[in-house]
Amino acid sequence: MNKNHIVFFENLLGEENVYFDKAHQIAYSYDATKKRYEPDGVLFPRNEDDVSKILKYCNDNHIIVVPRGAGSGFTGGALAVNGGVIISFEKHMNKILEIDLENMVAVVEPGVINMDLQKAVEEKGLFYPPDPASQDYSTIGGNVSENAGGMRAAKYGITKDYVMALRAVLPNGDIIKAGKKTIKDVAGYNVAGILIASEGSLAVITEITLKLIAKPKLKKTAMGVFNSVNEAMNAVYKTMAAGVTPVAMEFLDNLCIRAVEDKFNKGLPKEAGAILIADVDGNLEATLEKDLEVINRVFKENGATDFIIAKNEQESKDMWFARRNCSQAITCYGSLKINEDITVPRSELPKLLQRIKEISTVFNVTTPCFGHTGDGNVHTNVMVNKENQEEVKRGYEAIEAIFRATIELGGTLSGEHGIGISKAPYMKLAFSDEEMNLFRSIKKAFDPNNILNPFKMGLDENK
Amino acid sequence: MNKNHIVFFENLLGEENVYFDKAHQIAYSYDATKKRYEPDGVLFPRNEDDVSKILKYCNDNHIIVVPRGAGSGFTGGALAVNGGVIISFEKHMNKILEIDLENMVAVVEPGVINMDLQKAVEEKGLFYPPDPASQDYSTIGGNVSENAGGMRAAKYGITKDYVMALRAVLPNGDIIKAGKKTIKDVAGYNVAGILIASEGSLAVITEITLKLIAKPKLKKTAMGVFNSVNEAMNAVYKTMAAGVTPVAMEFLDNLCIRAVEDKFNKGLPKEAGAILIADVDGNLEATLEKDLEVINRVFKENGATDFIIAKNEQESKDMWFARRNCSQAITCYGSLKINEDITVPRSELPKLLQRIKEISTVFNVTTPCFGHTGDGNVHTNVMVNKENQEEVKRGYEAIEAIFRATIELGGTLSGEHGIGISKAPYMKLAFSDEEMNLFRSIKKAFDPNNILNPFKMGLDENK
Repeated sequence: MNKNHIVFFENLLGEENVYFDKAHQIAYSYDATKKRYEPDGVLFPRNEDDVSKILKYCNDNHIIVVPRGAGSGFTGGALAVNGGVIISFEKHMNKILEIDLENMVAVVEPGVINMDLQKAVEEKGLFYPPDPASQDYSTIGGNVSENAGGMRAAKYGITKDYVMALRAVLPNGDIIKAGKKTIKDVAGYNVAGILIASEGSLAVITEITLKLIAKPKLKKTAMGVFNSVNEAMNAVYKTMAAGVTPVAMEFLDNLCIRAVEDKFNKGLPKEAGAILIADVDGNLEATLEKDLEVINRVFKENGATDFIIAKNEQESKDMWFARRNCSQAITCYGSLKINEDITVPRSELPKLLQRIKEISTVFNVTTPCFGHTGDGNVHTNVMVNKENQEEVKRGYEAIEAIFRATIELGGTLSGEHGIGISKAPYMKLAFSDEEMNLFRSIKKAFDPNNILNPFKMGLDENK
Repeated sequence: MNKNHIVFFENLLGEENVYFDKAHQIAYSYDATKKRYEPDGVLFPRNEDDVSKILKYCNDNHIIVVPRGAGSGFTGGALAVNGGVIISFEKHMNKILEIDLENMVAVVEPGVINMDLQKAVEEKGLFYPPDPASQDYSTIGGNVSENAGGMRAAKYGITKDYVMALRAVLPNGDIIKAGKKTIKDVAGYNVAGILIASEGSLAVITEITLKLIAKPKLKKTAMGVFNSVNEAMNAVYKTMAAGVTPVAMEFLDNLCIRAVEDKFNKGLPKEAGAILIADVDGNLEATLEKDLEVINRVFKENGATDFIIAKNEQESKDMWFARRNCSQAITCYGSLKINEDITVPRSELPKLLQRIKEISTVFNVTTPCFGHTGDGNVHTNVMVNKENQEEVKRGYEAIEAIFRATIELGGTLSGEHGIGISKAPYMKLAFSDEEMNLFRSIKKAFDPNNILNPFKMGLDENK
C-alpha cells in the first residue's frame, strides 16, 4: 500500500493501532473457511470517530475496507479477498457500555464477545438468547453482521429479533443512528433492519442496542430415540404444531450418533436412525412438565422407541455432549468437511433429509447431518478425502444438488452462516436477476465507490 | 390525466377496474387524518401481474402511484397528495391464500382485513397477535407498510415481528420475493425488513407470509388504581423488570377516566390519577396466577390504592370498555384532537408524562393521555377548539414541544402511525441531515423516478 496512506492511518490512530507487517497480514488472513487472503494492513480504531475518519479517507482514496469480528465465520465474510485494510474491534471497541435493567436493554460495542455479554446479563437475572456455536469467541458485531442464529432459535429467534438500534458509519464517513431503545419505532426507513445480515458490506457498525428478556428460572432436557430420520423429522414439526415450542430441538442422524459413540463411548443408541434432543424452559415446574408430556406424546405417536427425561443437570449435560461434539466427531468420515447450513420450512424436513440421502447415494459421498431442526436448519456435512480430487469434485456436485433441493422445498441457502464468498456461486440458484439487481442498487445506495467489503454475496459479476 | 393513459389502464385491467370519475376521486381522497387530496384515478389490479404492468407503465410515463389499504392511517400515507393513481386491493387482491398448520404460517394478499385473518387462524387454534385499533377494517398490506402495532405489542411485538416473507413489485415493474417460510434466512440483503414500515414508498407489496403462534388457552384481566400518573408509570416499567410480560398494559389518565365516566357511567374511580389495565395469558392457571401476583405486588409497591382481578369474561370486558371508548369520550375536551403516538423507553414514561403536563400548562391546552404504556407508547391528545385559530396554533406548538421532549428522552416521533405527511415537518427533529440523506439514497435505489408515494416522510424538500 502507498506509504502516504499508512502515514495517514498512523497519524490518525497512533502507530500502535496500525499494522502493515507480514505477521499481521498472515494473522488476519483467514477465518473458519480455512481460505486465506492477506490484507494490506490491519487498523484498530479506538472509537466511532476513528472509524468515521478511516472510512472517509478510504472512500476518498478508493481503499477497500473489511470490518472483522473474531474471524469465526464459515463463509469468508471477514476475508480481504482483494486486499485493503481490515478494521478490527478487538483491541478497543470491545466494551459493554450499559446494561439497562429498567428497560431490559444492553448497549455494546461491536467487539464484545457473545459469551461475555451472556454472562454479564445473566448475573443480573436477564437473558440474551442468541447462542451461535461460536459464542465463546465470536463478537456481537459479527453476530449482527451475519444475523447469527444458534441452538435456542426455535423458541427465542435469532440475532435480528434482539437488535433494537444500531450506530454505524457509512462508507463516506457519515455517522448514523438507526432505531431506538423502544419496542415500537416506525419513523423513517428501517435502516437497522437492512444492516443486520448485510455482512459488513453497507456500513460499519459501531454500537449495538440489544433487547434482553427475563431469564427463565427452570430448564429441562429430554431425548427421543427413533428408528428412522423420517420419523424424527415428522416428530419435530408436529411437536411445534401441537403448541409446544421447545427452546431447542436438535437432531443427530445415525452417522453422527455412531461417530460420537465410537470416539467418546457415552452409551448412545448406536443402532438408532436418529435422536432428537429437546430443551424446554419456563418459570414453573408445571409448565415444563406439561410441555414434556406433549413432546413425549408426539414423539411416541411418530415412532419414538424411547423418551428419556434428564433427571438432573449432569444428565442434561450428558445428553447435550453428543450434540456438542458431533461436528468434531464426524471428521472420521473424511479429511475435508463441506459444511452447509441449509434451512427449510419445518414441515419439509422429512423430504429434505430424504433428498439428501438420495443425493449422497448418487454422488457416492458420506453426508452426516445434524442441527437445529426445531427451526428447520440442518447442518449438512459432505465428507470427502481432500487428497482425492475426484471425490472432492463429487462432494461439491453433491452440495450443489443439495442446494437445488433446498430451494425447491422453499428453503434458503443459508440459515446462519451467510453468503460471503463460499456460497456466492449459488446465489443465482436462489435469486432472480431482478432480485440480484435490487441487491446491487441497495449496495450502491450505501457504498457508491464499492469500498466496503466488496466481492461478497455474489454482487460483483467479476468475482 | 392524459386520455391515452386511461385507455392503457382500461385495456390492461378492464373498464370495471379503472375509475377516473369524480365520485371515485372523492371516495379515495381521504384517510383518518381527515385531510383530503383527490387522486386522478383509482385502479383495482386483479393480480400481481397487473400490478407489475401498472408500475412499469407509470414508471415509464412518470405517473405517480399511491398504494392504498383501507385508508385508516393517521398520517396520510395513503393520500395522493400530488395526484396520480391510487392502487387499491380491496376488490380483488384480498384473499387469505393459505393457512399452513404444519409450519404455523399464513400467506395472504395485501387487501385482507386484519380481523378476518385473526378470526380465520383462531378457528384453527392459531394466533396472529398484531391488533391495531383499526383491526376491524385495516388491511394486512397497510399494516405491513406502516408496521402497525396494537394492544398486544408489550408481550407479542408488532407487525414486523411476524412478517417472514413478502412478494412485491418494484417501481420499474420487477417482481421480487424477499424472505422465506423459514425462521432463519440470511441469504442476501434483508429486503423484507426495509419494505416493512416504508409507507408504500419503495415497492408495492403483493403477498405477505406471516408467522403465527399457538393460541394461548387462558387470559385474565386486572386493573390497578393509582393516585398519580407518576406512580402508575413507575409501576409499568417495574412490572416488566420484575420478569412479567403482560400481553397488554394500558393506561388512562384522570382526564380520560373522567371523560369515559361522564359519558358512560361505568363506575370508574373518577378521582383516581390514573388506572392501568393489564392482560396476562398462557396455557396454565398457575402461570397466570403467578403473573397476577407479581403485578399486584409491584403495583402496590408503587402506590396502587386498589387492584381488581376480573372474575369472568364480562368483568374483563367492562374493564376494557373504558380503554376502548377513551378515544371517543375525550372529544368532550375540544372539537379538534391533535393525536400523536409518541413512544419512549419504558423507564422514561414517568418523565415523559411529567413533561407533557408541564407543556400543557405552558401552552394552556388540555392533553388527555392514554395508551400502550406496556411498550412505552403513549397516545397523546392535544384537544383544542377548531373554531379558535389562536388555540389551534397553541395546540400545534404544544405538539412540537412534546415531540422535542420525546426525542430528548430517547423516544420516537411515531410508535405506530408512521410519518406520512402529518409528521413530515418534524423529521428534522429526530433525524440528522446524514440520516435523511441516507433515506433519500435508499428511496432512489428502489424508485429512481420518484413515482411511488412521493412527497411523504419528509424526504422531498419541496413538500
